Amino acid sequence: MRTRAAVALEAGKPLEIMDVNLDGPKAGEVLVEIKATGICHTDEFTRSGADPEGIFPAILGHEGAGVVVEIGEGVTTLKPGDHVIPLYTPECRECYSCLSGKTNLCTAIRNTQGKGLMPDGTTRFSMLDGTPIHHYMGCSTFSNHTVLPEIALAKVRDDAPFDKICYIGCGVTTGIGAVINTAGVEIGSTAAVFGLGGIGLNVIQGLRMAGADMIIGVDLNDAKEDMARKFGMTHFVNPSKVENTVQEIVKLTQRGIDHIGGVDYSFDATGNVQVMRDALECSHRGWGVSVIIGVAPAGAEISTRPFQLVTGRVWKGTAFGGAKGRTDVPKFVDWYMDGKVEIDPMITHKLTLDQINEGFDLMHEGKSIRAVVEF
Amino acid sequence: MRTRAAVALEAGKPLEIMDVNLDGPKAGEVLVEIKATGICHTDEFTRSGADPEGIFPAILGHEGAGVVVEIGEGVTTLKPGDHVIPLYTPECRECYSCLSGKTNLCTAIRNTQGKGLMPDGTTRFSMLDGTPIHHYMGCSTFSNHTVLPEIALAKVRDDAPFDKICYIGCGVTTGIGAVINTAGVEIGSTAAVFGLGGIGLNVIQGLRMAGADMIIGVDLNDAKEDMARKFGMTHFVNPSKVENTVQEIVKLTQRGIDHIGGVDYSFDATGNVQVMRDALECSHRGWGVSVIIGVAPAGAEISTRPFQLVTGRVWKGTAFGGAKGRTDVPKFVDWYMDGKVEIDPMITHKLTLDQINEGFDLMHEGKSIRAVVEF
Repeated sequence: MRTRAAVALEAGKPLEIMDVNLDGPKAGEVLVEIKATGICHTDEFTRSGADPEGIFPAILGHEGAGVVVEIGEGVTTLKPGDHVIPLYTPECRECYSCLSGKTNLCTAIRNTQGKGLMPDGTTRFSMLDGTPIHHYMGCSTFSNHTVLPEIALAKVRDDAPFDKICYIGCGVTTGIGAVINTAGVEIGSTAAVFGLGGIGLNVIQGLRMAGADMIIGVDLNDAKEDMARKFGMTHFVNPSKVENTVQEIVKLTQRGIDHIGGVDYSFDATGNVQVMRDALECSHRGWGVSVIIGVAPAGAEISTRPFQLVTGRVWKGTAFGGAKGRTDVPKFVDWYMDGKVEIDPMITHKLTLDQINEGFDLMHEGKSIRAVVEF
Repeated sequence: MRTRAAVALEAGKPLEIMDVNLDGPKAGEVLVEIKATGICHTDEFTRSGADPEGIFPAILGHEGAGVVVEIGEGVTTLKPGDHVIPLYTPECRECYSCLSGKTNLCTAIRNTQGKGLMPDGTTRFSMLDGTPIHHYMGCSTFSNHTVLPEIALAKVRDDAPFDKICYIGCGVTTGIGAVINTAGVEIGSTAAVFGLGGIGLNVIQGLRMAGADMIIGVDLNDAKEDMARKFGMTHFVNPSKVENTVQEIVKLTQRGIDHIGGVDYSFDATGNVQVMRDALECSHRGWGVSVIIGVAPAGAEISTRPFQLVTGRVWKGTAFGGAKGRTDVPKFVDWYMDGKVEIDPMITHKLTLDQINEGFDLMHEGKSIRAVVEF
């Protein structure tokens, strides 16, 4: 079939909107009509050429929602008409990682996925001249239709609006999941969130859901404060306006007769390795847990004195918020529909596919939290 | 009173054995006759001058066992004749940290302890000319008698031999505790231990106690292999004999249909920051936990790509094996007496106080696991 897609022809160039060929689903695969897709910093990381593993030409996009159109041989858990959210972290429930119960990082198809290919080592997309177009993060949601493995689709309820729940395909789940799955924040905790963009705001609402007492937001941009407070932030620190961000957070959180400060949990949603260090070091001696969410530039390294860990801080990271896609994503959709998770105020811009490059501009200008393309 | 002690007069010099003055216990303090003390790398770290926080003159030593001689006002949990192990990590059971239940890092007296002083800000030791001599890690076990706060003494059973259980005051508890308290190793796990010295061997026996299936020891010295196998090591890797230590460990541990390798748990007992990185990176994607035990040189930093954490590895550290001294140390002594914990083969040398500098020489020559001074 033919479908319409935004194609990244080469690194650093705007996406080109064009008709492309799409082969039907092979065994174990599913053809999905994408109804809406968010534009995420990770797409931009690859589009811009900053991603050393970026492959071109490719159809980017990994934060979508849509409807099953056709299923390939052997697909048993989905049928045409089902509403689905594509999963860049699949859940096969058969690999050693899935069976461990200890991680969401399914390894069933990671080798081909990392190469922009379907599990059989080929692409479904091609140019009209036959040149193959690579898949991206196993999703390629910047296309009106796409093909995914069955294990990379979460079936969700069909009364949920695509233009909102597409955000659950990445940002919402990553932010809230980092709090509830990776950090395991408990009621009454104190926390700091570095970076109040689309991920950081979701970390903040995750902390509110988890019952944190003090939610400190950190951002260089004062304009982020209002929105973050709406999602539950209780304190705001602008690093450009204090002498030492770590000390400022320590001061805000001094408790008990020994007056040791530091947050119980901290989260980096910036991708800046120096900020990741601050996030670790502002966490509480003895038990502070710091979670890295942001994607760092190629080659960048985090560092600290080992003493920070020996005195009880824990450094960890999260991918897709530790969520097991097929199991957890439908739950997030329920939470949104039940009003437990807020999404609407974060979808700041709606675009058509033809306007998709404006979405990247809005991101760079800091004007959008999430721009969503509707088909 | 007067007592006999090995005094570190200045950094980098051998200890000097001499008579010193020792004031009796003030309120909340206890006078202890030390019966035996181990010589640990941390003592050497300070003696040598490598420790930027080293204070001189001081009486070093923090791995002892002895008998209560006299109690100060208000001491209720100890009486003369009680057998005790000094605790460089006290357990006050009243500070915010103790009450949190989440850490063993009691903060009740850490400010004065770090300055080589008793909680009231003075020293009990002095030269015969009156010059104050600093305490060390709140213990100063290189003295026939010493004074400690009540909260820094674990009461232990009185049928346990001092020359063995002194090692529970640091090395045994640190190594085994790192496994059972900090890492929480479960039966059937795989693990790698970097550094097969006095701490590493105890990590290994901790892993054996916890039921680990595969215990990989890593050391540059082949001579360490035999002893480590006696404590439970199942595989040995000498980094100087393989191309890439991390890859070697990954290869040894490949499992499941996806053949991803890596240990469930890794431990650094070297203090070398590059080794700490290897320990992290050889742990399993998705759930590997790497624990830093070793003390790094002043200013040294650990680093890695954040991707290592984002893909599910956890970096943490341990002090005194996460053990709450007054609660856990008596249990370790019981375990030794019950034969669950082996200590005897690790006490490789017995010295008198006058021979204490030979203990440091043995350490440098790699000839001792633990040299113990008996009074």
